[in-house]
Amino acid sequence: MTDTTSYATGDHQVTGDGPPPPPPPLAEVPPARRRTAGEEARTLVAQTNVATLATLSDDGTPWASLVSYAALDDGSPVLFVSTLAEHGRNLDRDPRASLVVAAAERRKDPLAAGRVTLAGRVTRPSGETERVARAAYLASVPTAAMYAEFGDFSLYVLGVERVRWVGGYGRMDSADAEAYANAEADPVGEARAAITHLNDDHADALLVMAQALGGYPDAETARCTAADRYGLDLMVGTPRGSAPARVGFAEPVVDPAGLRGATVELTRRARATASNE
Amino acid sequence: MTDTTSYATGDHQVTGDGPPPPPPPLAEVPPARRRTAGEEARTLVAQTNVATLATLSDDGTPWASLVSYAALDDGSPVLFVSTLAEHGRNLDRDPRASLVVAAAERRKDPLAAGRVTLAGRVTRPSGETERVARAAYLASVPTAAMYAEFGDFSLYVLGVERVRWVGGYGRMDSADAEAYANAEADPVGEARAAITHLNDDHADALLVMAQALGGYPDAETARCTAADRYGLDLMVGTPRGSAPARVGFAEPVVDPAGLRGATVELTRRARATASNE
Repeated sequence: MTDTTSYATGDHQVTGDGPPPPPPPLAEVPPARRRTAGEEARTLVAQTNVATLATLSDDGTPWASLVSYAALDDGSPVLFVSTLAEHGRNLDRDPRASLVVAAAERRKDPLAAGRVTLAGRVTRPSGETERVARAAYLASVPTAAMYAEFGDFSLYVLGVERVRWVGGYGRMDSADAEAYANAEADPVGEARAAITHLNDDHADALLVMAQALGGYPDAETARCTAADRYGLDLMVGTPRGSAPARVGFAEPVVDPAGLRGATVELTRRARATASNE
Repeated sequence: MTDTTSYATGDHQVTGDGPPPPPPPLAEVPPARRRTAGEEARTLVAQTNVATLATLSDDGTPWASLVSYAALDDGSPVLFVSTLAEHGRNLDRDPRASLVVAAAERRKDPLAAGRVTLAGRVTRPSGETERVARAAYLASVPTAAMYAEFGDFSLYVLGVERVRWVGGYGRMDSADAEAYANAEADPVGEARAAITHLNDDHADALLVMAQALGGYPDAETARCTAADRYGLDLMVGTPRGSAPARVGFAEPVVDPAGLRGATVELTRRARATASNE
């Protein structure tokens, strides 16, 4: 990783009246584990099959276009493009390319959602790699069977050299090629149903988590905003204002079904901590 | 426009067993008016506020990233980016840029939906243009008020030089800068409710349209797949297979409310034509 996660507006050149920063935690808590930039990137790439490609036109200008993709086991994107399209002619002439994958989830403010840029060079796979890449593409983009045999379509694998993940406002980080290739997509997924269940039926448990483990003993409300293999993101309401907080599972979750047990353990730990204080 | 709309797979190098082409019309009908590429592009750009930007990194490689945008009255996109982000540093160094806007509508197969690439050069607006661009951006991206005063953010206007619209498989066309600037976004919008109403309650009318005006006298079924200011797209079922057809309104619709009257007129005309045959 080339830089560290930065939060909120700390790095911006604030010249006017910005929004007030969220209230800081009142208790010191050990930092809860988060996904690495490589894991965030692999998770986004695994979530969908549509991305935007940037290639170089013949005059050296950048060209943005929509593509479908698949991912190989090491996260390398597989593209299948026609030389009838400008991006196909561009890749045929110049292998330098970049792909941005945005979170499939919809938000009112798309810049609050995650996205990742992968940059590198494409190659035409051959032999076994070609067979694997083609099979991966057809599995990810079933309609490609319609044009899989067209002679003007070429299969490409993007060799990822640079990875830049942006998780929303103030959450961003880079990963190198190795970290990206070795990272795993989060097995938990978006966990919408689990998050709704936590907020609807276990607001009390979330509040104790925020108070005892999240650093906000003055929390009056707590909502879960995201869940991943390592823990829960909370939005905490305090008399000092709202703040994001993070609480971590004892062990990483290995599949969506594991989320329930990990949350039960987290609740138990939060209650035990609260009663010891 | 630099080329004409091409349909289906006619231009591809078909080397294997492709899907069968749709059955041709059995009756000769005058071609129904469609939106120009410029109108398609303006319609897509007006539909959302999120796009992917392609810029040039310092080593000349393309860099794809997510951005929010607004559009000026002539369709020129307005961007507001930070030099803390790679795309901001890229635009600061090299004005060449490209933007792809994809249909906000979700489909199972994203390559079947519309998208447009705009390519050109960015400039920093000044004076009245800056005021207008800033106001347009804040209206389109309300959360930008959070960072509107940050000193590292710059406002840019993309001067559109090239426009490439892709409407889905086999529907594509280019527009020049002037055609794009002078075109109008379709006032009809996605018209989901109107289309559902036509399919649910007026299948008989759609069938007569397909038979009498769409070129498919052997149509047995007809569904409306899209509506725009100039007419309806139908998917027609015949004993020879399914085919897309197009039926045009007598006059372009000028607002969403006009769709109903135009469709009633179309139905009346189809029935009159059918009873004269």
